Amino acid sequence: MSFEEMLSERVKAVERILAVYLPKEEGCQKTVLEAMNYSILAGGKRLRPVLMKETYVLFNGKGRIIEPFMAALEMIHNYSLVHDDLPAMDNDEYRRGRETTWKIYGDGMAVLAGDALLNYAFETASEAFNLVLAESGYLKDPFRAADAVRLYQSVSSALSVLARKAGVYGMIGGQCADLEAEKLPCGEVSEKLLYFIQKNKTAALIESAMMIGAILAGASAQDVARMEKAAENIGLAFQIQDDILDVTSSLEELGKQTGSDEKNNKATYVGLKGLKQAEEDVAALSGEALELLRKGPSRNEFLEQLVENLISRRK
Amino acid sequence: MSFEEMLSERVKAVERILAVYLPKEEGCQKTVLEAMNYSILAGGKRLRPVLMKETYVLFNGKGRIIEPFMAALEMIHNYSLVHDDLPAMDNDEYRRGRETTWKIYGDGMAVLAGDALLNYAFETASEAFNLVLAESGYLKDPFRAADAVRLYQSVSSALSVLARKAGVYGMIGGQCADLEAEKLPCGEVSEKLLYFIQKNKTAALIESAMMIGAILAGASAQDVARMEKAAENIGLAFQIQDDILDVTSSLEELGKQTGSDEKNNKATYVGLKGLKQAEEDVAALSGEALELLRKGPSRNEFLEQLVENLISRRK
Repeated sequence: MSFEEMLSERVKAVERILAVYLPKEEGCQKTVLEAMNYSILAGGKRLRPVLMKETYVLFNGKGRIIEPFMAALEMIHNYSLVHDDLPAMDNDEYRRGRETTWKIYGDGMAVLAGDALLNYAFETASEAFNLVLAESGYLKDPFRAADAVRLYQSVSSALSVLARKAGVYGMIGGQCADLEAEKLPCGEVSEKLLYFIQKNKTAALIESAMMIGAILAGASAQDVARMEKAAENIGLAFQIQDDILDVTSSLEELGKQTGSDEKNNKATYVGLKGLKQAEEDVAALSGEALELLRKGPSRNEFLEQLVENLISRRK
Repeated sequence: MSFEEMLSERVKAVERILAVYLPKEEGCQKTVLEAMNYSILAGGKRLRPVLMKETYVLFNGKGRIIEPFMAALEMIHNYSLVHDDLPAMDNDEYRRGRETTWKIYGDGMAVLAGDALLNYAFETASEAFNLVLAESGYLKDPFRAADAVRLYQSVSSALSVLARKAGVYGMIGGQCADLEAEKLPCGEVSEKLLYFIQKNKTAALIESAMMIGAILAGASAQDVARMEKAAENIGLAFQIQDDILDVTSSLEELGKQTGSDEKNNKATYVGLKGLKQAEEDVAALSGEALELLRKGPSRNEFLEQLVENLISRRK
């Protein structure tokens, strides 16, 4: 099977899991349920849940306790897009070739739909706790209480990571710094500030994905930290590659308007360090990420290929 | 000690707990941290955490595992106010005598501050899991794994209730229906729809408070359901009393503009059923709530007084 076929199979698996966890569109609150599903069913790479699942597999994770977390992380990613597109934020009318949520439902309803997706992510992740007694073996064997305790510890630690990396010490922190940096003249955005923004706005959810995959598979604290570092590199390289494509790619290749960062007076890595240095840094970051992925006792070649493809992508 | 003194002591206790869990205002994301604290430190009755704690006490709850949940629920209540006040929603410039969050920080930052508070609520509630091993006695006695499992079950069940009652099947569901009802001519808002809105927009977080108090104290499923029903009645009575005060109270008494529901063409219980029926229903709902509270083996007289005061309040 080619890499593309393997990837497409995994994306389909994510979408089957999403279908299980997404809410039904019924009741007096039908509109907000429709708006939630409108945004999350618009497609996208499903990169974060795929990375989560593949890291789980890397550490020999078995069982379904990962699934509510995969769905939850995709909901968090999508709520952040719904709110980012709002007139009060980026004021974007199109995303993934369709009108944005606020264009269809109005901006009040889009605020609620984003809130609802974020909240529903935690409702969904909490369902993992309902699987603990069965998956730890405690239901069948009352002498396995200590195993159940260990699995409860993993699930609650995964939940803490999910919440922290999405919040003010993760994605939202990056969004805040980004919102304020847009008001600064480009030259005043320091390398330190740009690192903070890209690390938090982009890398944090990727860190969340790979850390949760490792934690739920029962990886050691050391391995979880190794995945966090690999994910940080992947996230940063992914974002810098985005900045590079915005400069070098054509509209046809990218499928969206290029040159938009310069037009929006947005500080980018390329603007700060130059195209050549940016390309070298992407190579260095991704090389380090791959080295970290290969360092453990077991390997996941699909995951390694995915990381390589993400970073050398042309769109 | 008078009821007012007892209440003021309990409100102070909530504020001490909030101070422990609120984030420090530092780092590149300082502004969003300030905006979060601005909204939550603006005051308010702290009704929900007080109800949670008193229900915990009613069921002989001991220990500190309730505290992160008390803080989390107050964060959820406050995020909902920050987003409700946005120009895209109610467009309110003042709350509790101060400018609203978006008036001070801009509406983009207020969207983020609301998101951040909601997310931080789940970060905070998740901290309860870190207390399980100590509070269950398992840390000192490895033979108490089954006790740890039971406490993990309670905490995860409390977390599910927190998330569900705040989301599309709770508060956000009510907000969505309310947003849509505002566009209908008043006469077209049915009793059923108004019940849905008040039950979800107002009562759901009160149900969450009292259910979580009972769950974390180890109450039976039957007792948790009894608290849910009592809380529903309290929430509905509270909301109807709000509607009544909007009609009958003077600006001086209420400390905010009265007659605003009529001005905003907002469907209210009084508009639908008349003042006399509304007053009778408040009395019936609160009577039933008090009966439910008194039905168990133990009593909490302060909680009963609190419920009586809430419903007979003049502001």
